[in-house]
Amino acid sequence: MPGYPVLPEGLAYGGDYNPEQWPEEVWREDVRLMREAGVNLVTVGVFNWGLIEPQEGEYDFSLLDRILDLLHSAGIYADLATPTSSPPTWFRRRYPGSRLVDREGHVLGGGSRHSFCPSSSDYAAASERVVAALAARYAGHPALAMWHVHNEYGWANAHCYCPTSAEAFRAWLRDRYGDVGALNAAWGTTFWGLTYGAFEEVEPPVAAPVGLLTGLQLDFMRFSVDAHLACFRAERETIRRFSDLPVTTNFMIPNCKPMDYWRWAAEVDVVANDHYLDSARADPHIELAMAADLTRSVAGGRPWMLMEHSTGAVNWQPRNLAKRPGEMRRNTLAHVARGSDSAMFFQWRASRYGAEKFHSAMLPHAGTDSRIWRDVVALGADLGRLAGVRGARVTAEVAVVWDWESYWALEFEWRPSADLRFRERIEAYYEALWREHVTVDFVHPSADLSPYRLVVAPSSYLLGEGAAKNLHRHVEAGGHLLVSYFSGIVDENDTIHPGAYPGALREVLGVAVEEFHPLREHETVRLRPSKSSGPESSEPESSKRGATGRIWSERVRLAGARAVHEFADGPDAGHPAVTRHDLGAGSAWYVSTALDAGSGLRDLVAGVLDHAGVSRPRGLPDTLELVQRGDHLFLINHADAPVTVDGVTGTGVLDGAAYDGAATVPAGGVVVVRT
Amino acid sequence: MPGYPVLPEGLAYGGDYNPEQWPEEVWREDVRLMREAGVNLVTVGVFNWGLIEPQEGEYDFSLLDRILDLLHSAGIYADLATPTSSPPTWFRRRYPGSRLVDREGHVLGGGSRHSFCPSSSDYAAASERVVAALAARYAGHPALAMWHVHNEYGWANAHCYCPTSAEAFRAWLRDRYGDVGALNAAWGTTFWGLTYGAFEEVEPPVAAPVGLLTGLQLDFMRFSVDAHLACFRAERETIRRFSDLPVTTNFMIPNCKPMDYWRWAAEVDVVANDHYLDSARADPHIELAMAADLTRSVAGGRPWMLMEHSTGAVNWQPRNLAKRPGEMRRNTLAHVARGSDSAMFFQWRASRYGAEKFHSAMLPHAGTDSRIWRDVVALGADLGRLAGVRGARVTAEVAVVWDWESYWALEFEWRPSADLRFRERIEAYYEALWREHVTVDFVHPSADLSPYRLVVAPSSYLLGEGAAKNLHRHVEAGGHLLVSYFSGIVDENDTIHPGAYPGALREVLGVAVEEFHPLREHETVRLRPSKSSGPESSEPESSKRGATGRIWSERVRLAGARAVHEFADGPDAGHPAVTRHDLGAGSAWYVSTALDAGSGLRDLVAGVLDHAGVSRPRGLPDTLELVQRGDHLFLINHADAPVTVDGVTGTGVLDGAAYDGAATVPAGGVVVVRT
Amino acid sequence: MPGYPVLPEGLAYGGDYNPEQWPEEVWREDVRLMREAGVNLVTVGVFNWGLIEPQEGEYDFSLLDRILDLLHSAGIYADLATPTSSPPTWFRRRYPGSRLVDREGHVLGGGSRHSFCPSSSDYAAASERVVAALAARYAGHPALAMWHVHNEYGWANAHCYCPTSAEAFRAWLRDRYGDVGALNAAWGTTFWGLTYGAFEEVEPPVAAPVGLLTGLQLDFMRFSVDAHLACFRAERETIRRFSDLPVTTNFMIPNCKPMDYWRWAAEVDVVANDHYLDSARADPHIELAMAADLTRSVAGGRPWMLMEHSTGAVNWQPRNLAKRPGEMRRNTLAHVARGSDSAMFFQWRASRYGAEKFHSAMLPHAGTDSRIWRDVVALGADLGRLAGVRGARVTAEVAVVWDWESYWALEFEWRPSADLRFRERIEAYYEALWREHVTVDFVHPSADLSPYRLVVAPSSYLLGEGAAKNLHRHVEAGGHLLVSYFSGIVDENDTIHPGAYPGALREVLGVAVEEFHPLREHETVRLRPSKSSGPESSEPESSKRGATGRIWSERVRLAGARAVHEFADGPDAGHPAVTRHDLGAGSAWYVSTALDAGSGLRDLVAGVLDHAGVSRPRGLPDTLELVQRGDHLFLINHADAPVTVDGVTGTGVLDGAAYDGAATVPAGGVVVVRT
Repeated sequence: MPGYPVLPEGLAYGGDYNPEQWPEEVWREDVRLMREAGVNLVTVGVFNWGLIEPQEGEYDFSLLDRILDLLHSAGIYADLATPTSSPPTWFRRRYPGSRLVDREGHVLGGGSRHSFCPSSSDYAAASERVVAALAARYAGHPALAMWHVHNEYGWANAHCYCPTSAEAFRAWLRDRYGDVGALNAAWGTTFWGLTYGAFEEVEPPVAAPVGLLTGLQLDFMRFSVDAHLACFRAERETIRRFSDLPVTTNFMIPNCKPMDYWRWAAEVDVVANDHYLDSARADPHIELAMAADLTRSVAGGRPWMLMEHSTGAVNWQPRNLAKRPGEMRRNTLAHVARGSDSAMFFQWRASRYGAEKFHSAMLPHAGTDSRIWRDVVALGADLGRLAGVRGARVTAEVAVVWDWESYWALEFEWRPSADLRFRERIEAYYEALWREHVTVDFVHPSADLSPYRLVVAPSSYLLGEGAAKNLHRHVEAGGHLLVSYFSGIVDENDTIHPGAYPGALREVLGVAVEEFHPLREHETVRLRPSKSSGPESSEPESSKRGATGRIWSERVRLAGARAVHEFADGPDAGHPAVTRHDLGAGSAWYVSTALDAGSGLRDLVAGVLDHAGVSRPRGLPDTLELVQRGDHLFLINHADAPVTVDGVTGTGVLDGAAYDGAATVPAGGVVVVRT
Repeated sequence: MPGYPVLPEGLAYGGDYNPEQWPEEVWREDVRLMREAGVNLVTVGVFNWGLIEPQEGEYDFSLLDRILDLLHSAGIYADLATPTSSPPTWFRRRYPGSRLVDREGHVLGGGSRHSFCPSSSDYAAASERVVAALAARYAGHPALAMWHVHNEYGWANAHCYCPTSAEAFRAWLRDRYGDVGALNAAWGTTFWGLTYGAFEEVEPPVAAPVGLLTGLQLDFMRFSVDAHLACFRAERETIRRFSDLPVTTNFMIPNCKPMDYWRWAAEVDVVANDHYLDSARADPHIELAMAADLTRSVAGGRPWMLMEHSTGAVNWQPRNLAKRPGEMRRNTLAHVARGSDSAMFFQWRASRYGAEKFHSAMLPHAGTDSRIWRDVVALGADLGRLAGVRGARVTAEVAVVWDWESYWALEFEWRPSADLRFRERIEAYYEALWREHVTVDFVHPSADLSPYRLVVAPSSYLLGEGAAKNLHRHVEAGGHLLVSYFSGIVDENDTIHPGAYPGALREVLGVAVEEFHPLREHETVRLRPSKSSGPESSEPESSKRGATGRIWSERVRLAGARAVHEFADGPDAGHPAVTRHDLGAGSAWYVSTALDAGSGLRDLVAGVLDHAGVSRPRGLPDTLELVQRGDHLFLINHADAPVTVDGVTGTGVLDGAAYDGAATVPAGGVVVVRT
Repeated sequence: MPGYPVLPEGLAYGGDYNPEQWPEEVWREDVRLMREAGVNLVTVGVFNWGLIEPQEGEYDFSLLDRILDLLHSAGIYADLATPTSSPPTWFRRRYPGSRLVDREGHVLGGGSRHSFCPSSSDYAAASERVVAALAARYAGHPALAMWHVHNEYGWANAHCYCPTSAEAFRAWLRDRYGDVGALNAAWGTTFWGLTYGAFEEVEPPVAAPVGLLTGLQLDFMRFSVDAHLACFRAERETIRRFSDLPVTTNFMIPNCKPMDYWRWAAEVDVVANDHYLDSARADPHIELAMAADLTRSVAGGRPWMLMEHSTGAVNWQPRNLAKRPGEMRRNTLAHVARGSDSAMFFQWRASRYGAEKFHSAMLPHAGTDSRIWRDVVALGADLGRLAGVRGARVTAEVAVVWDWESYWALEFEWRPSADLRFRERIEAYYEALWREHVTVDFVHPSADLSPYRLVVAPSSYLLGEGAAKNLHRHVEAGGHLLVSYFSGIVDENDTIHPGAYPGALREVLGVAVEEFHPLREHETVRLRPSKSSGPESSEPESSKRGATGRIWSERVRLAGARAVHEFADGPDAGHPAVTRHDLGAGSAWYVSTALDAGSGLRDLVAGVLDHAGVSRPRGLPDTLELVQRGDHLFLINHADAPVTVDGVTGTGVLDGAAYDGAATVPAGGVVVVRT
């Protein structure tokens, strides 16, 4: 069984390399510049199906042969991709039944990528043939370090609604339920009289006049994951017939909602991720940190690969902001700090044509006389100095619950408020923790929680009984739990747990909610310390100050818990807003409105962290990112002023300085200390 | 001929009851709690087609038998629904030609309700069979009080564009026009050279590259009403073969634009309506009052049934606000005050699954230990005390013109301003009247207007010659008329009346408009008393103050009328804004801009009411709702402070108090006095 | 070869005339009123296909005969239209393969116009038959002045994606590229592995899951122009078999993005244009002036015909504002000032029915007792007095580059910023020039530039190598060039020119841009005079004041040019913002951010005009429009106060006054002086 790491030593550095877009004389310059920048791994072949199989069954590997030989001669490893994310034009013409169909029934066109049905047997057969030919030819090539199957599964064709997909969906349902009565029970088909008499009557959730059965929608999401996973597994097994090198595919955490990466991670030899900065955000690096933590978590804590990020602007956002000076370096090193053993970019050389020609690259259109190129070379040197961090682990005392099934279900139409969004609360809590300098893992709600002092569940709308019991046991065993509103509402079938809300968590939280009170757009409610909560010292600081909620309030009754905060106004004035339930050796906290980092959430989270005994540095500005990975301490300064951090002892890995007591991180700079 | 009332005594109280969603042991609790709450009528079977006909032609009534028997044993009546709004899954699979097609040509999916073509003969045949089986079985069941055909006709499938519908539309046109020349004349097909040579050339108004013939669109709206009406009539006649109990279907007044309920009302034994609060509004209870008045009006003034409303939040609005304390009671009693002899909810017990699981119910997920349940029990007691109002009538001195055909035509594309919307002006005038404590009827423009001192026509864009003459005769006979801009513009074919605007009303109003001057978004114009209007005492108060218009101004020339207000600025500065024409024994007023309750409309309406001699209470806050129904005076206080009303004598129906002079209505409370 | 002018003398005045919408008795009134207004040309027959060929192959010209005879008897000429923009209903039914299909694959409906596929051979054959019949019948009719082919080509059916169109597109590509390898090279199909093995594999750019090849999109735009041009040419040649009168079709400059009117203009005997005011704008007359200048420019400087404009409001804008008093006159005379030898309206008499019934007309619904009618009569008199301007030319010292291919390519998806829009910068520079009282021509970038002192290129994103050399030669030869950002980026295949931006213009501008820095929404950057720019007197005034940029900044390196302004803040603080490059006998200026008339662009443009020695009047308010056409000086005052212009000598054409020194133009008025 192959496995991580893929290179013999150090961190991997490089990017997607598409030499087929350039005349061969450019290749030699490429390789020379790669060496100048310290590049040691490039991804090749991602879009080469048409190149290597120009007509069905006729292969031409001459170009790829030369590229791989050239890379090898320069000591650069290849991450060789299977080209199946973009079938060739002859395939589309010959197999019209493989075309992608959207939920309105439109047959989507070619002249693009990802335009195929993942359940098509013609696609599967053609994929098997080309992957086998590719693997047979290059299995033993010395340039090869790993296999990169496909590209960004589910990015644009997550769901197909063609007749083939419909038939595959029905087969999947037969498998899952055995008989149609079980399906009816799971989906609650007595609602609107939609009881199925046979599996043959089930259609995918195509556009309908009004709201669809949510059970149908949820299972179609699950089926779609399986449809793509089956494609991946088939390619992986084909490769295995020829090669034992590690096999991966590039995820898009957290920006590909339809793919349940907990399930995907179990299938790859090493987790690889593509992440692009959302430049419209105020602090996009916090979302980046979350992405990296989530990627490490789906990788089970093992090192992972940053397979794509960007040196500057992307091309698909409404306004594609460039990175400011130092931002690329901070971004890359934040990924490494949070567990990546690689720093790969899309792409090596900026394209002159095609849909992505305005996407930044390691080598921009302007060439080497450019800030980006100089930064790329400098980054290569930094990564060389960081070789020692390879393989090291990041540990966390706090876990945040993340479940793609809850993501899907929470955002179906006809929920209590359009302002309820899965990531909204996750990101609010993540930001508060980030600003408190707390590194977090993400967990599936049924995961082993014993490593964590505190588990935070901001968006666990869908929560099965078993998962709820898991959280309960965590608290009883002395752990702590912090839950946000609209969690524990439905089970795995999107069926509401019986009784008062939050059904699955009522007992552990010691509260009962009798009615939701969504707020109007832009409406806010004020919180105040609860009169009933005494002057106990373990109360968070926030209980003494004001806080403001948005989006949500609800009528909470205490059923074991006590109120920490209550609403000062709004639909629930005088009733509990934040509660705490001491249970067994632990405590369970509940927050029934949307606080934000700047409006009470920071204080609340700090109080709960203190209560849970989570260790963290104090007195640092909340713009400093601080992560310990193995014996490397990463200090990343996102502010425009330098920061001095006390108690830092060790060797500066990037700057060679000896630190003994205080380390000053320049404005926008990064210091890494080996302790 | 069966008819109203449907229960032997008192008001009906209850809701939709879907026991098929629950295990049978829950049913007994349901019935016990229904009795506790005073429930005496429940609607059953709405979505039971799949349950009672699980395979085509095979019936299974066992569950429904037990439910009806159980209800009967508890003294609760059943409003038995035909299940035809949600055909079973086998039907959809077996008869693909019956599927609903939207105007872009998409075949809409299942897994939902209302997904069928109303012109499908397969649907008609299957409906006939199941309704006959149902009626045959339960016609004599002692629990039965009435028949509830289908559910919310036209809610999601008002228009179908499939080939079957196209053929049915052509047949309908043949019927309407006899020969195609008459159709061409009506639609004005010389425009853009669209003269039809034969009926076979007509297509439904599917999505086209640019604007469609408006005559085609208008007739397709009419055809669609007839398509659904034909479905209803067929079911009703099937039931009649077995039962003489009252037959109804639930309307959605005023929130189902495609259904012309003047025509529907003529077909039902009792008018039933579903109404849900639009919680995003500032004063949603005014829209509720309008809905209730319009429902009573389409019922010809006879008592009607409130078939569905909600105890709290719904699930389909962007933010589903809960009702505040007392709001459900005020809502329900406002419906009763305005003519409803029932108070029914969707639904009895909140669903655990399906698209509506977050819709409130009489029995919430939290169960009986909840404010909603306690309010439901208290409401049942209130309704019991109100038994004496049953059958009583509401009378009005003011009528507002409402014509669905004008609603449709006014909102076709390519009108002078996108801010022209049918309900915008109707609601503005309704609000001004509501705040003046004036109860209004709604009327079709060709109705008998003799009962009314004042007729208000805020949105009579489409107004046939006969209807215009009807309004003219009303004024000549001593009635009064108040018309807003963009009325009387087109005839029944959406053809502009000849000459200066408003062609159909030019004579009665004594004005001629030569050009429309729509205002920019957010632009306003000021009004001032007209210099030419003398100090006559009958001028409204508003003539002495300022007023502000939005949306519209136009160049009005006096042609018999005199100016009451003129524009102080804007495109028509110095020209008439509000005019009055004394004609015969009455007067006709014209308002050529959009005034609002807070910007001049209140004063204007008050002045016209005074001029017309409409009686109403004075000196009350404009948040108090005051309605007389028979000998019951309803005082509903929507404000947060108590209100004292003088001159109230009689017995307090809800509180048992004896009133002799002044009645104080608590903040948010309701007092009903039998005088 | 027939040609311009079409009338024996004077300017043409009239409009679309659709007598088929009216009973014959109205026609006599029409003709009487036309004579009263001075109308001498009307367009007839635009939508008459169904009228003259009521069944396939059966013609009925009786109505059209009577109309043409009536016009002739009144001395009014006819612009006779072929009716092919709206095929009859029988055609659509008999030839379903000719139906228009949109990019999602929807077959669009009838009941409208323009609903046909331009590549349909059935459409071509039917068009040929009806045009031949029409031309044969009326070629010698004495009323005829010219032929008006079709109506607004490409307005609603610019692109069709049906199978017939797909096949025609492939044939077009075969023609263009010869072999598929050339197509692959042009489109850059190595990107995403989309290399075509055969032309048969190419599909039109229908809706795809993600971004399409931009080369494919660009060629489909070009193909679509050719598809419509082929329709036009076929009709023109059919007419030529019978008649030598001028043939035209009405363009929609600049509001029909898909039609490349540089190519269209080469095909018509006289350029005709439809222009409607965009009433939502603050100063819509500036857009009108731009439209007129662009129309004259595509006409090669020859007089053109204003074929449609409006007397008042249109019907298709969100809010259709009426024209203010005097606005129609100013609009019409501005078109004449800028080269039109006609003033035609849509339409003569306002329709009572159809989609355009709320569109204003020369004769409004209100009839002759209306301001519009009186203004129409007065305008007729004005135009009579302007007969002497007929045929005169307008000359310009400044040219603005306009290339429809750049328009298309610049606005493809996935560009650096959604705020990049072709017309945004063109209009900003045009406004600055207009306010400086400078008349401009528009030019294709490869046109002869020798007549111009200054060429302005605000949006030349797509610029082939040859065109770039043309601009270069212009500067070397002593011309001046002013370029805005994001110009010279790609070649004719949308492939980025090699090296630093702006590749095609790097040398002439003497700058190299290494990275784009798009700004956030609403973000601004300040500019300041560059420290390195000395106190040379030729620097524009703006260098001494502040200026503010939006949308864009970028990192400019000087490579021959020197900095005039630099950024004071933002991503490029301290780096050049505006540069000047003295090259040969001329200069080339570059502006790397979006300045606006009110925020620095006015000053900058004034400085460059001064530097280039462009003559223009000084000291006039920037609301006065001043255009010299031949020996006629047009002074159009768009402000609410009178303006006195010095140095005016000659005869007032409209008012008969003798001007000797100063002319006062009344508020909102127009003075035309023959010098």
